[in-house]
Amino acid sequence: MGKPFLAITTGDPAGCGPWVGARAALDKRVTRRARPVLVGDAWVVHRHFRKTPAQVAVLTNLSEYDPRPHRLNVLHVPHPHIASLILGKPQKVGGVSAALAVRTAVALAQIRRVAAVVTGPVSKESFKAAGLPFAGHTEMLAALSGSGPVEMLMTAKNLRALLVTRHIPLNAVSRQLTAKVLVNSVLRADRWIRSAWALRRPSWVVCGLNPHAGDNGLLGREEIRTVIPAVKILRKKGINAVGPFPADVTWAKHRAGAFDFVACLYHDQAMIPLKVAAAREVVNVTAGLSFIRTSPGHGTAFDLAQGRTPFLRADPEATVQACLTALRLADNFL
Amino acid sequence: MGKPFLAITTGDPAGCGPWVGARAALDKRVTRRARPVLVGDAWVVHRHFRKTPAQVAVLTNLSEYDPRPHRLNVLHVPHPHIASLILGKPQKVGGVSAALAVRTAVALAQIRRVAAVVTGPVSKESFKAAGLPFAGHTEMLAALSGSGPVEMLMTAKNLRALLVTRHIPLNAVSRQLTAKVLVNSVLRADRWIRSAWALRRPSWVVCGLNPHAGDNGLLGREEIRTVIPAVKILRKKGINAVGPFPADVTWAKHRAGAFDFVACLYHDQAMIPLKVAAAREVVNVTAGLSFIRTSPGHGTAFDLAQGRTPFLRADPEATVQACLTALRLADNFL
Repeated sequence: MGKPFLAITTGDPAGCGPWVGARAALDKRVTRRARPVLVGDAWVVHRHFRKTPAQVAVLTNLSEYDPRPHRLNVLHVPHPHIASLILGKPQKVGGVSAALAVRTAVALAQIRRVAAVVTGPVSKESFKAAGLPFAGHTEMLAALSGSGPVEMLMTAKNLRALLVTRHIPLNAVSRQLTAKVLVNSVLRADRWIRSAWALRRPSWVVCGLNPHAGDNGLLGREEIRTVIPAVKILRKKGINAVGPFPADVTWAKHRAGAFDFVACLYHDQAMIPLKVAAAREVVNVTAGLSFIRTSPGHGTAFDLAQGRTPFLRADPEATVQACLTALRLADNFL
Repeated sequence: MGKPFLAITTGDPAGCGPWVGARAALDKRVTRRARPVLVGDAWVVHRHFRKTPAQVAVLTNLSEYDPRPHRLNVLHVPHPHIASLILGKPQKVGGVSAALAVRTAVALAQIRRVAAVVTGPVSKESFKAAGLPFAGHTEMLAALSGSGPVEMLMTAKNLRALLVTRHIPLNAVSRQLTAKVLVNSVLRADRWIRSAWALRRPSWVVCGLNPHAGDNGLLGREEIRTVIPAVKILRKKGINAVGPFPADVTWAKHRAGAFDFVACLYHDQAMIPLKVAAAREVVNVTAGLSFIRTSPGHGTAFDLAQGRTPFLRADPEATVQACLTALRLADNFL
């Protein structure tokens, strides 16, 4: 039946998403394994690409896919006011167009017409301007797929993390982090990982929250109050989990090959080590959906909307890695 | 006058300090540049080293230094009850012996008899058992040298961080972090760095506290309330500082060579990336003392007090790096 289709959404059309998505769709590492299709407004893609030799094939449905080399296939999801778009800033039309592309890609994934969805970066502010009730992609995808709560994994090279809390102020972490939250988060991720990653019994390490994982309560009591009880419950439920260990030591060990997954208690406890170890290759994976969804682990890079070829300096590598990860996971998942 | 003396304290004698200190004192990279002397109870050193071919020279003062190769020079700081020491656990005799060694080394540094002090890891619990009123080395050194407040820098390879807050619960960071604290911390560190690091005008980047540095207040307001005003004040005072930037992006850029120093707002914001990038080489530098002091960026490793040669698996590399960093800084500082 040939190579599977892979949907890559443009993300916010005012950001780097159309550019990095197009570059990834043309990357040999991706085309060797799949038929990548950029999903979004073809007008934007054309505008971004008018100075490149790539030929854009505008599709109204996937059966029109053009398999010739150096051909960028774009599944056209038009927005009537796209010509008013100003590159490099959050705006209503950007949020609406990004959301339309995601809806289309999700629909294709749900009927298994595409093997997986890679989403380009969106702007929280554009979403807000568009009146969308979602803090970001993860929440929107959970709502669209009707899957209930989902988990956010971040990976780069051989590093893999679960974000137990996500986009909240650091000062709110201690309050929101209960044993129940931690247990449910790891349980949900673990269940999904067993199928998507084809790991029979993933090994987990849970980071402490405080310096030195609290040093027996001298430097904070969340470990004693919350994390240690949660790890006990997880082990009783058959999860292969240890911890809490000091986050710095844990990450050094994970980088050296220990543990399949690191459960991180706050956003930067995962993002700092991933970006330090592999800045260009960080991939976001949503666990718990009914289909595979990944995205590059960076934002819209509005600041790169400059020069004769806007976003020329935006690096497509994370999007390429997001495609490869999505395809690998889809092989196990389907 | 020959190579300078370098004092390496044993740290807690029940921990890995005597072992890694001795190994570093015998390391060619160190002996090529200095006359290293292990400062501590010679009984412990002898006990740790009886199974190695190194010869221990027990000194009562530095003029007895034995320069022959493979000779471990130990400046003997005896503790009357040292024979009661049990390896691998915190205890009163360990805390007292560690403190005696530090006092001796500091005295030698203050009269410039040694070029610098490298301190072996101590145990907060041993210090407590010994009735010492210090949370750790940094506080003890500040008190002994009468220097007023000091700052904690951590370095590894070409990475350098200032810890604006140190050993406090993560949940207390937002409360303790005021613009005044941040400004004074960077000012003190900057002044000291200009002489010790011989950097005429170090470039600083200040990390945000929250995910995405707060995303314009959407994910926390400490950046708007505290960090942005502090950076403004610092720039007015002639400090070459930028930020706040998201911590993950900041560290990726620093690893790629940008900025001389990263100002980190909490312990793990510095320690996670340093341990991930260079787990074996993390060095702690105290800024603001009247002499140079460094130490390896790890603890007592009580869990390695096993087998026929306890601490055989403790890695001396961080202590070697602490010695080399101390000697480099002392060259500029004296």
